Amino acid sequence: MPYAPSLNWAPLGGPEEAQIVAAHGARMKRYADFLSIPSVSAEPNHAADCRTAAEWLAGELRRIGAQRVEVSETGGHPIVVGERIEDPTLPTIVVYGHYDVQPGDPLDLWKTSPFEPIVRDGRMLGRGSADDKGQIVIHLAALEALLSTRGRLPVNVKYLFEGEEESSSVNLERWMASHPDRCSGDAVIISDTGFFEGNLPALTVGLRGITYLQVDVRNSDVDLHSGGFGGSVINPANALAAMIASLHDEQRRITVPGFYDDVVQLTPADRAAFAALPFDESAYLAAIGAGAPQGEDGYSTVERRGGRPTLDVNGIWGGFTGDGSKTIIPAHAHAKISCRLVMAQDPARIALQVEAALKAAAPRGLQVEVRNLGNGYPFLTPLGDPYLQAAANALKETFGADPLYLREGGSIPIAALFQRELSLPVVLLGFTPPDDNAHAPNESMDLGNLEGGIRTFVRFLEGYAANPASGSGSRTDAAG
Amino acid sequence: MPYAPSLNWAPLGGPEEAQIVAAHGARMKRYADFLSIPSVSAEPNHAADCRTAAEWLAGELRRIGAQRVEVSETGGHPIVVGERIEDPTLPTIVVYGHYDVQPGDPLDLWKTSPFEPIVRDGRMLGRGSADDKGQIVIHLAALEALLSTRGRLPVNVKYLFEGEEESSSVNLERWMASHPDRCSGDAVIISDTGFFEGNLPALTVGLRGITYLQVDVRNSDVDLHSGGFGGSVINPANALAAMIASLHDEQRRITVPGFYDDVVQLTPADRAAFAALPFDESAYLAAIGAGAPQGEDGYSTVERRGGRPTLDVNGIWGGFTGDGSKTIIPAHAHAKISCRLVMAQDPARIALQVEAALKAAAPRGLQVEVRNLGNGYPFLTPLGDPYLQAAANALKETFGADPLYLREGGSIPIAALFQRELSLPVVLLGFTPPDDNAHAPNESMDLGNLEGGIRTFVRFLEGYAANPASGSGSRTDAAG
Repeated sequence: MPYAPSLNWAPLGGPEEAQIVAAHGARMKRYADFLSIPSVSAEPNHAADCRTAAEWLAGELRRIGAQRVEVSETGGHPIVVGERIEDPTLPTIVVYGHYDVQPGDPLDLWKTSPFEPIVRDGRMLGRGSADDKGQIVIHLAALEALLSTRGRLPVNVKYLFEGEEESSSVNLERWMASHPDRCSGDAVIISDTGFFEGNLPALTVGLRGITYLQVDVRNSDVDLHSGGFGGSVINPANALAAMIASLHDEQRRITVPGFYDDVVQLTPADRAAFAALPFDESAYLAAIGAGAPQGEDGYSTVERRGGRPTLDVNGIWGGFTGDGSKTIIPAHAHAKISCRLVMAQDPARIALQVEAALKAAAPRGLQVEVRNLGNGYPFLTPLGDPYLQAAANALKETFGADPLYLREGGSIPIAALFQRELSLPVVLLGFTPPDDNAHAPNESMDLGNLEGGIRTFVRFLEGYAANPASGSGSRTDAAG
Repeated sequence: MPYAPSLNWAPLGGPEEAQIVAAHGARMKRYADFLSIPSVSAEPNHAADCRTAAEWLAGELRRIGAQRVEVSETGGHPIVVGERIEDPTLPTIVVYGHYDVQPGDPLDLWKTSPFEPIVRDGRMLGRGSADDKGQIVIHLAALEALLSTRGRLPVNVKYLFEGEEESSSVNLERWMASHPDRCSGDAVIISDTGFFEGNLPALTVGLRGITYLQVDVRNSDVDLHSGGFGGSVINPANALAAMIASLHDEQRRITVPGFYDDVVQLTPADRAAFAALPFDESAYLAAIGAGAPQGEDGYSTVERRGGRPTLDVNGIWGGFTGDGSKTIIPAHAHAKISCRLVMAQDPARIALQVEAALKAAAPRGLQVEVRNLGNGYPFLTPLGDPYLQAAANALKETFGADPLYLREGGSIPIAALFQRELSLPVVLLGFTPPDDNAHAPNESMDLGNLEGGIRTFVRFLEGYAANPASGSGSRTDAAG
């Protein structure tokens, strides 16, 4: 669906609005500085860039007035923390974002350079502009607006910005266990989600989990002449194709034994909520240039992407991939395969099931290695949660409409991590437009969403403190 | 099977033997010079290297005493021709070889550098040392030995060395049609084959044909976030895997409709010849590090590689293939697929059948493009052919044993081309050892094979002229 340029948001009353407007130019400059750091966590050669981004972010927190700012080691890319504890008796919210980004490739499909951000047509273009640096910019701007006009916040806030979200947050859980004071509070706000098609305000209440695998198959020590060996030995590329093909049936259900055992089936109410979304399937397909939907029989497109698990090849390679022809049987072939998971699938268990299914489908004699590159649990916020309601109020006040409640297809492992490990209520309050091209070439952030996001978060902090009935009234009760 | 260092060959009588021995050092130097030119015909950035190799070869022909030497344009990489017409009433043989080579990659698996040839343990190591520059060196040495000692050859010879054999000889047929005097003669000798396991002298009497395809599938304009889209749209990598998997059944027969229609089935005599080969399957597998044979049910390993058609993936790629994890649904995916063909399959017809099968297996909405990158007909020399017998005599005289008669799995399109288009008898007389790693890292040529090859070819030229009964007696009769 094309961008709706009519996105409107209500200015704040009071000096905060004036401050936000006055700081616009400097804020855009800093936003661009942040995006120009290629903090690609998945690529080892960008480790130094991840650290640079972390240091940059710590500097911003200090400049704005956060306290106890630290670039904290994790064994991988560092976590940036800071806080503003105004009064220990006030409620404390923990804000999560991530400063790492997806790789920039394929570079040839970008209209601009991924790490040379530029504003065009009301959007910031560049890798991380939406996912997730832009959302961090929203939080920094809201903090600055409140501190520079009032000198204090209406509530306590702790910031936790990690650098490995795009690499399955491999060190986060252990780090949290050894830094309990940095994560403790009354509720968690995660800003790594966005609006619905048509750029309609939305709150994400469900996220899929994930397990990410790499499968490596090998038959011979070296590539073989396809004439001298063709027909008489295993071709690892053909074998891998057959192994992958065996993981789905004709109805596009996943055939991995046990895969669906723990799936909480969609209720009639869940399916009604999906059906109520103003979803335009043909626009959804047209926006990506696809000709037809495809998925598990018996489910709608919105159900398939938000409410059902998947098994997708993320990458596949082997043999000769250059120009022209080379007549070999590849020595080895490889695939990256990930499953999006729903409540209450256990990612580690699914990883083992997929590994077993791949090995069972391999021809005898083929060497098969399967490695688990990362896991994340699925997540669900109950619709009646009071913290969710406080966020909904701030969104309605800013954008003039009740938000939609979404179950998204993506994975934010930390949402489940906070919910499972810290027993804190978690609200996903994010602002990216639906056509942001996250994880793809030409990622962008609508600046209307960014500006509205800043106002929403100021309202949320104020409303959260001012209105315990809807914002924090049942805080301790809901923490279980 | 490991190299048999006991390969013995009988020296020539007369001054030729002394000349060949005296020229050994200079010959090895020139052989290395030839190999150091990276004449990779399939890679456009090596076009200049192909021309350099052609010019080098033309220079060698002139130096030795060939006449009418020319680097002849084809529209692609040039063909090098030269000849020695001693007497128009003598029989004329046409000698074919190719100066182009396979790509050097994967470089990390070479123990030496592919284009920095070196002699080690009685072998010349380097890309093209066996396939096919080493065999050209044999012909040049035989020519030089005869001309420098006698001043003339016992028969007329025409040389035709092409530069696109590893790229399906795309321009050869048209070039031959416009240069009939360069290809006319009484028989054709092609030196692009080798010895049997155990390094036993052999004559190749059968070759498989080939058709080489590239399939490109695409669903979306850009890579998609596997969370936001997974489960609801076609994944081109999963789809391509399923399309490829659909091309074989459980018995590893090829399921492409019509694929086997024109196959000349193996006769009991054919199968007896295959069974008579001294073939050591476990050594065959151990030499390449493979754990088990695999192929079409109902056929032996030697039958599968020499007497039955195949469908192999030569390369496959799509999506994220770097380190770590990237959670995308690839926009597109690709495979190079080739079929080895047997008598009397027509490669162009098979290409269309495979294309149709791939498209029939694709999900609705997926964009599928299939391109034919090259074709070659299968080939068979009747066992009773007199030219074949002359070659067998020369081999027996040199190596002390009757050669084995092989049906090889590889493809040499020109063999079928000469047989089909010029109506000339064709003999495949080649000398590479079976463990030469052609088309793979660490290609090498056994220098015992090279030296024996030179003596064999001198004997063949002499025997061909001296003994019309076995060598050329039925030349005109057999040409049909």
